[in-house]
Order: sequence, then C-alpha cells, then structure tokens
Amino acid sequence: MARGRRWTYARSGVDRGSITEALGALLAETRYRPPSRSGQRLHLPGHYAGLVRIGRETLAVTTDSVGTKVRLAEERNDWEGVGEDIVQVNVNDLAAVGARPSVLVDTILCEVPNPAVFAAIGRGLGRGLRKGQISLVGGETAVVPELVRGTDLGGTAVGFFPKGRRPVTGASVRPGDVVLGIPARGFHANGFTLLRRLLRTRRVNLDRPRPGGHGPVGSELLRAGRIYVGASEAVAALKSTHGFAHISGGGVRNLVRLRDDVRFELDRWPAPGGEFRWLQELGDLEAAEMYQTFNMGIGFVVVVAASAVEATRRRLARARFADARVVGRVVRGTGVSLPHLGLEYSGYS
Amino acid sequence: MARGRRWTYARSGVDRGSITEALGALLAETRYRPPSRSGQRLHLPGHYAGLVRIGRETLAVTTDSVGTKVRLAEERNDWEGVGEDIVQVNVNDLAAVGARPSVLVDTILCEVPNPAVFAAIGRGLGRGLRKGQISLVGGETAVVPELVRGTDLGGTAVGFFPKGRRPVTGASVRPGDVVLGIPARGFHANGFTLLRRLLRTRRVNLDRPRPGGHGPVGSELLRAGRIYVGASEAVAALKSTHGFAHISGGGVRNLVRLRDDVRFELDRWPAPGGEFRWLQELGDLEAAEMYQTFNMGIGFVVVVAASAVEATRRRLARARFADARVVGRVVRGTGVSLPHLGLEYSGYS
Repeated sequence: MARGRRWTYARSGVDRGSITEALGALLAETRYRPPSRSGQRLHLPGHYAGLVRIGRETLAVTTDSVGTKVRLAEERNDWEGVGEDIVQVNVNDLAAVGARPSVLVDTILCEVPNPAVFAAIGRGLGRGLRKGQISLVGGETAVVPELVRGTDLGGTAVGFFPKGRRPVTGASVRPGDVVLGIPARGFHANGFTLLRRLLRTRRVNLDRPRPGGHGPVGSELLRAGRIYVGASEAVAALKSTHGFAHISGGGVRNLVRLRDDVRFELDRWPAPGGEFRWLQELGDLEAAEMYQTFNMGIGFVVVVAASAVEATRRRLARARFADARVVGRVVRGTGVSLPHLGLEYSGYS
Repeated sequence: MARGRRWTYARSGVDRGSITEALGALLAETRYRPPSRSGQRLHLPGHYAGLVRIGRETLAVTTDSVGTKVRLAEERNDWEGVGEDIVQVNVNDLAAVGARPSVLVDTILCEVPNPAVFAAIGRGLGRGLRKGQISLVGGETAVVPELVRGTDLGGTAVGFFPKGRRPVTGASVRPGDVVLGIPARGFHANGFTLLRRLLRTRRVNLDRPRPGGHGPVGSELLRAGRIYVGASEAVAALKSTHGFAHISGGGVRNLVRLRDDVRFELDRWPAPGGEFRWLQELGDLEAAEMYQTFNMGIGFVVVVAASAVEATRRRLARARFADARVVGRVVRGTGVSLPHLGLEYSGYS
C-alpha cells in the first residue's frame, strides 16, 4: 500500500480483495500534494513511516494501534502490556526507517472510563515511553459506546533524523548483504484475531500455563512486545546498515517493504519458541500461514553489508541487543524464502 | 487536561467525574521526559496541540477523531462530509496554535471494508487535504469487527512554524483585547451524540428539511465543518495576534484554554443560525448546555490587540474570511461570559 499505509484485518470472514479495492478507492482520491511551503513530502512507497522535510529537519510519522490484543486484555483485566504496546507498535516503525522517536500522541476509545484500567494502561504506557525514549505530548480519550466495543488503543509517533543520519529505507540493500535478526518477546501485538479465535474454539484455559510455558498462558500472551529503538539508534548512522524491518503484521513478508527486486533468503532463521509451536499445533496451521501472520521469534531485522556483520553485532550488543544473530542473506531474485521450510512469499500483501 | 489532551464523551449516561479520575490516573503515569537529544518538549498545558522543538524547527502535533457524527453518515450512507472532517478536526487545532499544517495520517477502523464507502470518504478526505493544504503521508486501515461498531474515522496532523513565526498560545492575551469570531458551517463534528439522541427520540424525519432549512436535514447535518487554516495563516505572524481558539467540543469554554486568568466577555456573539435554535427547541435544551456543547455559529476565534482589529479583519478578508466579526472582548476576571444571555463558565472542562 502507498505511503506507509498499513492495513490489518480479521483473517476470518473478511475478503482480502475487497480491502485492497476499498483502500485503492480511498488512496486514489487523496493524492493531493500541497505547495512546497507546507513541507516536502518524501516518497517512500509502502514503507513503515511517512517522511517529510520541514525546513532543515526530516521527520518520520507513523500511526498504528494495538488491535485485537486489547480484547484479551479486557477478558483478563490485565492492561499494562497493551498500554506499553501503544508505544511499541509505533516506535518500532520509526526504528525501521532509522528515525529517532521524539513525541507520541495516543488515542483511547472506550465504552466506559474505568480509573483502575486507565491507571494500568498508563503504567504500561509510561514504561513504553521510557523504553522508547519518547514523550507523550497529547492524546485523545473518547468515551464512545456507540462506536467502540470494549476499548481501542492506538497512537501516532513522530521521529526525526539527527544530524548526519539519513533515513534507512532499504534502497542500498543488495545481493551479498547479511540479514541479522533480533529476537521477539512472544507474539507482540500481531495475529491476535486468529490467536483469540483458536483460544476460544480449542477452549484453552488461560489461567494455566501452555505445555512448556511458565505462568498462565493468558498472562504470557499479554506481555508487551519488545522495543527496538536502541538497536536502530546503535547502527542507523552507519553506511553499512542498509535496511531495517519491523516484523509485525504480515510476518516475514515485511522484508519486501525494503526492496522488491532482491530476494531475502532466510536460511538461518532460528526455530521459533515453544509458544509458536504450541499455537501452530493448536490450530493445525500451515507453516506458510504462521510465517506471514506472526513474527516467528524475530521481531526486528537489520540488513547489513557482509563486511560489517561483526562490527554491527558488537554495536548491537553494547546497546543490549547481544541476542542479534544472522538469520539469512540477500541474493538475486525477488521475494522472501525460508528454503529449509520450503516457504516462498512474493510480496508484502 | 494536560498537554493538548482532549476528551469527549457521550453526555448521556457517562459520569464526568469518572472520566476525569480515569484520565488523571493515566496521565500521572506518563510524565516521562526523554533526554534532550530526543527533542525538547514545550509545555503548553491544556492547549490544542503538543509542541516540540527538534533541531531548528518547532513542531505541533494534534490528534482527533470525527466521533459519533460518523454514525449519522452511516445511517444516511453519506460519507464525503465526514471524510473531509478527518482533516477539519485536526488542522483547525493546528491553526489554533498558529502552526502551518504539513502532514496528516488517518485511521479508519471498520467492521466491513466497503469500496464505495471508502471512495466517498476518500473524496471528502482529498477535499479536506486541499483546503487544509496538508498531505497524507500514511495511515492505518483496520478491519476489526471485534473492536468497532460501524466505522471510526480519526487522524493525527503535524504542523510547524515557518521562519519568523512563533506559536500563538494566548500567553499575550490581555484585558482590552478584542475577540473576533469567524462563522462556522453548521454543527461541525461536535455534539453528535446528543444531537443524534434528539433526532431519535423526537422521531425527526431526516429526509425532509428542518423548519427554515434547505434540503434534507440529514444532509445538512452531515456537511463538513469549515477549515480555518487560511485564517490562521493570514494573521498568525502578527504581534497583534494574541490567541486563537477552535470552538469544538466544549463550545465557548474553549477560550479558557488560552488563558484562565482573564475573562472573555462575549457580549457581541451573534444570535446563532436556525439550525441551533431548531435543535434547542427540539431538545428543550438550556442555553447553558447549548453554548458548552456546540459552536453556536462561530467555529474559530482570533483574539487581537484592540488597535489591530481593522487591519486583522482586512487580512482575514483577503484570505476569504470576510465574515469575521467582533464577538466580544477580554476583560479582567476569569472564565467566559455571555452577559446578554446571563451565561457564565468558569473553566474548560
């Protein structure tokens, strides 16, 4: 989709073609470009953030919501993780273009304002702000029982490029580059419509651990996603850093957002953790579906020149991302493949 | 509320105190300020936009949604107005701090993606972009029947201050200043929960004109609100321009957001148009309620030094706001009053 627009949908019962058609109809009408005195928009089709040049600064803007993970938070009355995720889903998209997060605004739509719930969301949000090094400068809170079921949590983040740093768009990605992956912390905030449907139909007891898990599976699923701002900050200014990808909705297909004229061969993608294997079995899901829906254990990717792999890993380690590892490489071709699993994807959506 | 946070609520059945408590709980946890390398947040409590200084630029960020006006659009299958309102509700808040709009991201949450509906929203959105001189650089479209009833339309806008222009915060407002008002175009996107409840309980036929109205009242109510960017642009850089107010949810109480230690005496506020009188009669509503819920005919206010009234009006007229008029003045005291109606308001919320 154009200009950093993301779309998500409930995989069950929604026709993918009608969404594409609907969005196409919308975007066809909104191509207006204001005069240059309003700032120069930089064209970055399909990317994680919209970029604009204002005066001597380049800004990145991204917007995203926590999605249906919030429904599970509601069922469990466990809100801190999704509060933190308001920050996580947005700052990781800024990190994916190499922008430094600056300010966030949040949007909370709810049926009923519950002070205890808001306090818990606030604690998570506050923790996210600290991890993402971003400040909250405003927001909207609307009590709109006519519009929302339960609670919707979203936000918009603005970042910038410090002096000497350029946007990391993937334009310099080339065959021969190495793909580093940084582990995720569980499912993050993606795939929850499918996930919740399975929990329901398989009558999973959320109060008990999953096989091999620790603590109630409901609590495990509600942990906040990992924030990768520090990783991006550590290496974004290096010429050898060719691209970043936030592995969010769309799974490994997200890599195609960097370049669609090379092939990302993820031949060393590690076996995912037990939570993913458990879910795959629970739903009798195909691997192809898993890898295009969930992060499969890797939440953020750094594509680097082959000569810079060790230096990049050292920098990441100093920024507390010592668990970054080689998960694949860039070769001639197109799309994304996991050859050891026989998987191939041709595009982002 | 702090830092440009706005809240709205369905006036029927929601306890105002519990919202204030809930928001207080949230904000108490989110006061984190990142190190200065992430940008310097400017403190502007309760204002229309959050401000941050990044490098040599000052940015304004604001977020708002169209609210329950969307439900009426759905009932009437008439979407262009609310599409335009995505822009309107946001750029007018930028205009209210004197920021020039630059980029917008939109959020569309829906139960079902309907291409015809999206195309109509897009046409309105595109028209809003042109009027607001702002470009769409991204957005989120989520098909989330579990989270939303019908469709929710919102957005976040980023603006900036061109060279030589400072934020217009109201800090220089003082007794003796004159309050200019610029007419609204109907109800804009505020008060629709109350409005729709009255339409329902009084069984208003939306296909017929209201008394004195033209065309179906349903269509009249769904017209997009007026965009005041041109007015703000015309006078924001003048030293004699002391403050702006976007008369949105909260009605005339919005003036208190500029300063709470002066009194805005709106002794020349014009009698509102027939649509407001019709609604007041329909609901047997008190004037006090009307003026703190609807714009009452004036959608944007410019507070100027008394010596600059005529020069300001001339500039506004050249920018196609020839209908700006004196609606009141600033005097010693606090709050907002409409003495000819015997109305007094002490605060914003």
